[in-house]
Amino acid sequence: MQVILLAAGQSTRLDPISDKNTLEFAGKTLIEHQIAALKHANMRDIAVVAGAHNIKKIEEILAKQKNVVVMEQTDLKTGMAGGVLAGAKVVKHKNILVMSTNDVFEEKLFEDIIQTSKTKDIDGVIAGKDVDSYFPGGYLKFGKDKLITQIIEKPGEGKEPSKFVNLVCHVYNDFPAFVDFLKKSKAKADGRYEDALNIYIKKGKAKIMLQKYHGSWQAIKYPWDILKLMNNFLNQLERKIDKTATIAKNAIVEGNVVIGPNVKVFDNAVIHGPAYIGEGSIIATNALVRSSMIGSRCVVGFSTEVGRSYLNNDVWCHSNYIGDSIIDENVSFGSGTVLGNLRFDEENVKVDIKGKRIDSRTNKLGAIIGKGTRIGINASTNPGVKIGQNCFIGGSMYVDKDIPDNKMALVEQKVKLIPNKKTISIEDRKEMMKKLNKK
Amino acid sequence: MQVILLAAGQSTRLDPISDKNTLEFAGKTLIEHQIAALKHANMRDIAVVAGAHNIKKIEEILAKQKNVVVMEQTDLKTGMAGGVLAGAKVVKHKNILVMSTNDVFEEKLFEDIIQTSKTKDIDGVIAGKDVDSYFPGGYLKFGKDKLITQIIEKPGEGKEPSKFVNLVCHVYNDFPAFVDFLKKSKAKADGRYEDALNIYIKKGKAKIMLQKYHGSWQAIKYPWDILKLMNNFLNQLERKIDKTATIAKNAIVEGNVVIGPNVKVFDNAVIHGPAYIGEGSIIATNALVRSSMIGSRCVVGFSTEVGRSYLNNDVWCHSNYIGDSIIDENVSFGSGTVLGNLRFDEENVKVDIKGKRIDSRTNKLGAIIGKGTRIGINASTNPGVKIGQNCFIGGSMYVDKDIPDNKMALVEQKVKLIPNKKTISIEDRKEMMKKLNKK
Amino acid sequence: MQVILLAAGQSTRLDPISDKNTLEFAGKTLIEHQIAALKHANMRDIAVVAGAHNIKKIEEILAKQKNVVVMEQTDLKTGMAGGVLAGAKVVKHKNILVMSTNDVFEEKLFEDIIQTSKTKDIDGVIAGKDVDSYFPGGYLKFGKDKLITQIIEKPGEGKEPSKFVNLVCHVYNDFPAFVDFLKKSKAKADGRYEDALNIYIKKGKAKIMLQKYHGSWQAIKYPWDILKLMNNFLNQLERKIDKTATIAKNAIVEGNVVIGPNVKVFDNAVIHGPAYIGEGSIIATNALVRSSMIGSRCVVGFSTEVGRSYLNNDVWCHSNYIGDSIIDENVSFGSGTVLGNLRFDEENVKVDIKGKRIDSRTNKLGAIIGKGTRIGINASTNPGVKIGQNCFIGGSMYVDKDIPDNKMALVEQKVKLIPNKKTISIEDRKEMMKKLNKK
Repeated sequence: MQVILLAAGQSTRLDPISDKNTLEFAGKTLIEHQIAALKHANMRDIAVVAGAHNIKKIEEILAKQKNVVVMEQTDLKTGMAGGVLAGAKVVKHKNILVMSTNDVFEEKLFEDIIQTSKTKDIDGVIAGKDVDSYFPGGYLKFGKDKLITQIIEKPGEGKEPSKFVNLVCHVYNDFPAFVDFLKKSKAKADGRYEDALNIYIKKGKAKIMLQKYHGSWQAIKYPWDILKLMNNFLNQLERKIDKTATIAKNAIVEGNVVIGPNVKVFDNAVIHGPAYIGEGSIIATNALVRSSMIGSRCVVGFSTEVGRSYLNNDVWCHSNYIGDSIIDENVSFGSGTVLGNLRFDEENVKVDIKGKRIDSRTNKLGAIIGKGTRIGINASTNPGVKIGQNCFIGGSMYVDKDIPDNKMALVEQKVKLIPNKKTISIEDRKEMMKKLNKK
Repeated sequence: MQVILLAAGQSTRLDPISDKNTLEFAGKTLIEHQIAALKHANMRDIAVVAGAHNIKKIEEILAKQKNVVVMEQTDLKTGMAGGVLAGAKVVKHKNILVMSTNDVFEEKLFEDIIQTSKTKDIDGVIAGKDVDSYFPGGYLKFGKDKLITQIIEKPGEGKEPSKFVNLVCHVYNDFPAFVDFLKKSKAKADGRYEDALNIYIKKGKAKIMLQKYHGSWQAIKYPWDILKLMNNFLNQLERKIDKTATIAKNAIVEGNVVIGPNVKVFDNAVIHGPAYIGEGSIIATNALVRSSMIGSRCVVGFSTEVGRSYLNNDVWCHSNYIGDSIIDENVSFGSGTVLGNLRFDEENVKVDIKGKRIDSRTNKLGAIIGKGTRIGINASTNPGVKIGQNCFIGGSMYVDKDIPDNKMALVEQKVKLIPNKKTISIEDRKEMMKKLNKK
Repeated sequence: MQVILLAAGQSTRLDPISDKNTLEFAGKTLIEHQIAALKHANMRDIAVVAGAHNIKKIEEILAKQKNVVVMEQTDLKTGMAGGVLAGAKVVKHKNILVMSTNDVFEEKLFEDIIQTSKTKDIDGVIAGKDVDSYFPGGYLKFGKDKLITQIIEKPGEGKEPSKFVNLVCHVYNDFPAFVDFLKKSKAKADGRYEDALNIYIKKGKAKIMLQKYHGSWQAIKYPWDILKLMNNFLNQLERKIDKTATIAKNAIVEGNVVIGPNVKVFDNAVIHGPAYIGEGSIIATNALVRSSMIGSRCVVGFSTEVGRSYLNNDVWCHSNYIGDSIIDENVSFGSGTVLGNLRFDEENVKVDIKGKRIDSRTNKLGAIIGKGTRIGINASTNPGVKIGQNCFIGGSMYVDKDIPDNKMALVEQKVKLIPNKKTISIEDRKEMMKKLNKK
C-alpha cells in the first residue's frame, strides 16, 4: 500500500504561526512525526503533496527519507481534491491510503484500517470517530449492510445521520477507479473530494466500510490546537537526559523530562515534567519550565516562567512569564515582559481568526507570536493576542490588539518633566541600611 | 459578670477593607480572637452588638459559640450609647463589662479589671493607659480619693488632666443604674456615652476606680492599623507546621512560621518567620514570604515577594512585589504587578481617608485593596493607594489615585504603528548563542 | 624621580557620572589605584593636580598618603599645560614623570620608562603604543637616530608617521628646561603641551626616546570606558571571602569573587565570578550577580539580576534587571524596573555625548545613571540612555531620551474609568484552586 500524505494546505487560520508541517515537536517536525507513524504501521511508500509556500523546506526535511517523494500541488485553490490528484501522478499501486498532515491520530488506526481494507469484496475504508456532541464536520451515513452510503457535510445539530464523523484517513483498494470520479466531479474545490467520493459510492457502487476509531484525534486548525498537540506529545515523553547536557547540582529536574544534547541547566532552575528541552538550549538561573516544549538553541533566561507553552527553536526569554502561549522560531522577549493568559472575568479567551472572533474554548490562553519578532522590556499582552512575523514591539507597550506582520509598534508616552527640588542624601540611605540590618 | 461587646461600628475609615470584625488573623476572625481572650479571662457570657451590615456574617462566625448572643443595633447613628443600650436588652447580671472589637488589649487587662472591680464599695472601673505624648482621645480626671471624677474628651496638648487615656474597657457593678443615666442623656450620639458616665459620676455619686494598663493597645481605625494588629499576632506565633502540609525538600522555612493544613510549599520557596500561611495555600517556586499573614486558599505564585503584608483568604499573586500592603479576600494580581511602598522623597506615606489626607506615620506603606478585585499584569500602584471592591484594573496601569468600588480602569495607550523594515535573521541569533556559550 | 599626576580634567563626556578620580573600583578610588601603581614602581613622591570641582574630595581620599601633595589648577581652561605648570610649582627634582589619571596602564610601563630614562645623554622618554588601526590621537614621528622628532596630532588615516601613539606617560630628565618652553608656548590650551614639547625637541634640541608599550591601556573618556576599566580590575581579582561576611548555606558563590566585610548573601542568591561585593552590601534572596562590581552598602534585592554592570556605593535595587549599566552612588530602583541593554536591531548602541550621537562600539549597553537619583517601579530604559543626577523617574515610565540633572519625570497616563458590572465570586476562585490542586 502506498500513501498520499496531503501537506499543501496553507492553514491561514494558524497565522502568524508558520506552516504546521515544519513546526517541531520534541525535536522532530510534525510531518516527520506523521511519516514515522505511517512507517511504523508498515506503510513505507509515501507521496507527500506540498505547496509552493512550503515545498522547499519540506524537501529539505525529508531529503534523507527513503521511499518518500515530494510532489507539488501547483494550484492550491483546488483544495484536497487537487492534492489527491497531484499525488495520483506518482503513486503506482492500486491500494492507496489518503491522509493529511492536518490530522494527528494514534498509530493503531493505520494498522486497523489496513487490516479492515483486506475484507473481501470491498472497495475502501473510511475512518470514523464517534463523537458525543455535535461537531461541524462531515458525518457518515450507513445503509442496511452497514456500508457507508454517503458523507453529509455539516448536517446541523440533531440532524446527524450517525454518530460517526469522517476522518481524513481513507483507504482505496482501486484508487484509479476513484480518481476517475475525482477528475469528473464538477463540485467546488472545498467539497469536490467528498462529492467524488459520494458519487463513487452511489454511481460507482463502491463498497466502503467504516473503520471505527476511538483514539485521540488532534486536528491542527487554530493556533491553540498546537498546544493540544504538544500535550499529546508531552504525555508520551519518557524521561531522558542527554549525557552531554550539563545540569547544575542544585537545579531540579522532575518527572518525564527530555533534555537534549548540550543543554545547560543553571543554578536553582526548576523543570517539572512533562517537558522537552531541545538541543543546545539554556535554562538559566531561577527559571521554571513546566508542561512545555522548548525548541533548540532557546534561552529561558533568569527568573523566567514558561508554563504550558510551545516555544519553537531560537526563542530567547528573560525574566518573563510565558503561559499557555505559542511562540514561533527566532523570537525574543525583553526582561519583564508578561504574556497575560486569563481574562479578568475568567471567561473563555477569544481570538481574531480571519476577521472573526473565535472562542478558543479555554479560559487559559496567552499570546501567539510569529517568527522573527522582537518584543521589548516590560511589555504586556492580552490573552489571545496575536503578534505577526518580523515585528518589533516597543518596551512598556500593552498589546491589546493583534499586530500584523512586519510592523514596528511603539508606545508614545506623555511625560511631565519638571524641576526636582528634593534630594535624598547618602546619609538617609545609610540610615535605612542600619534599620534593615537591625531586622 | 457578663460582657457587652460592641461590634456594630461601620468603620468607614477602613474602606475599602471590609468589616474589621470578620477579618481573619492567624486563621480566626478578629471577633473570635476578642471573644477567646474574654473567655480565657473567664468571662463566658457575652452579648455581641452588631449592625445590619455585619450581623449575618457575625452570626455565622459565632454560631457554635456557647453563651454568646448576637443583638442588632438597629440605628447605627446612635453610636456607642446605642450599642450599649442594645446590649442592655439581653444582659441580666448587674456586673457588666463594656468593651468594643475596635480595641485589642492583652488578656491580662481583663483579669486585672475584674479583680479591681471587686474592691469594696465601688461602682465601676475604667481602664486607663498612661501615654507619653498627647493622644487625641478622652483623658481621665481624678479626685483626692484617687477616684475618677470626669472623662475629658480631647483636652488639647498641655491641658491633660492626667496622663491616663480612657480605654473602652469599663466595668459596672450596678449596670442598670448606669443605663438609667444613659437613657436620660441628651448629648449627641458621639459623646452620649461619656456624657452619661460623667453625669453618673457627678450626680449619681458613682465611685469609679482606675485600672492602670501598661500593655499593648491596638485600635483598628485606619487600614494600616491592620498591619500593626497583624504584627501583634505575628509576634505571638510559635512555629508549627501542620503534618498535612507538603514542603519541598529544598524550600526554606525559618523562624516562627505557622503552616496550616494542606499547604504546599514548592521548590526554592523561602518563608522567613514570623509568618502565617493559612489552610490550603500554595507558596510557589522561588516565592519569598516574610513577616506576613497569608490567608486560606491563597496562591503566592512564582517569584513573588510578600513582605510585611496582610493577605486575607483567596488572594492570588504571581510574580509580584506585595510590600507593606493590606489585601482583602478574593483578590488577584497579574504577573509583574508591583505595589510601590516607599515615596521618592522617603517621607511618610499619606492616604486619602474620607476626603482628608491622613499621615500614616510610616514611610513604608503599600496598597490597600478591597475584596473581589482583579489587577492585571505589569500594573503598578503608588504608596498608600486604595483600590475599591470589585474593581478590574487594566494591565500596565500606573495607579496613582484611589479607585472607587466597582470600577473598571483601563489605560489608553497611544501607539505608533509603522512598517518594520529590519529583520533579524536566525543566523544572528545563532551567532549570539555562540558568544553566550563562550562566556 | 617625582611624579606630576594630572587629575584636574572635568571629563564632561562622562556626564552624568561624577568625577572619575573618585569612582571606586574593588573598594578603592581610581586615583588611589593610580598612586598605588606608581608607588609599587617605586615612584613615591607625587604631586596631584586637582581642580576646584574635585580637590576637596581628592584631598580627603589622599589625606593619609605619605609624600603625596595635592595642588589646585586654578584655571581649568588652560588644559594639560596648565596642569603641568601647577604641578611644577611644587616639584623639586629635575627628573619628573608626567601622567594623568585619565589613562590606566599596567605597572610594568612605569618600571620600563624609568629604566629607559637612565639612558646616557637623553633628555626624556615618551611612552608609545603601537596600534593596528587608526586612532584619533597624537602619533610619534622618528628621526634617523630613532629619537622622536615630533608629535603629530590626528594625522588622519594613512598619514600616520609611525604606528606609535603618544601615551601621556612622559619622563623629563631636565624638567625645568621643558617648563621654560611650556611657559613660552603661545598655542591654545588644548595643544599647548604638545606644542611646547615639539619646540623643546626642535629648538631645544632635546633628545627624547620612545618607550614601547604593548600592555593594556584604558582611557576613561566615555561612560562605557568605566565598564572596560571595571573588567580590567575584575580580571585581576582573586577569590576572597571576608570572614565577617554571612553567606546563606544554599547561596552559591562561584569563581573569582571578592566579598567584603559584613556582606550578607541570602538564600538561593547566586554570585558568579569575577565579581566584587563591597563592605556591608546585601545580596538578597534569589538575586544573581555576575561579572559586576557592587560598591559598599548596596542592596541587590530579591530576584534582581546584575550582569556586567558597575554599581557605585549605596545603590539599592529590587527585582530589577541591571545589565551592562553604569550606576553612580546613592541611586535606587523600584521593583520591576528594567534597564534595556540590546537594541531590537542588535546594532551597536549609540549615546548622546555633549550633543553628538557617539557609537559605543558595543551592542550591549544599558543605562548610565547619575548619583542621588531615584527610579520608580516597573520603569524601563532604552539601551544607552543617560539619567542625570538627583532625578526622580516615575513608575511605569519608559525612558527613551536622556534626562538632565535635577528633574522629576512622570508619566501622564490616560485612563478610562467605567463601571465594572462583572464580579468574580469567591466560589469561582475555589473552583480554580481545585483544578490547580488536581494538576
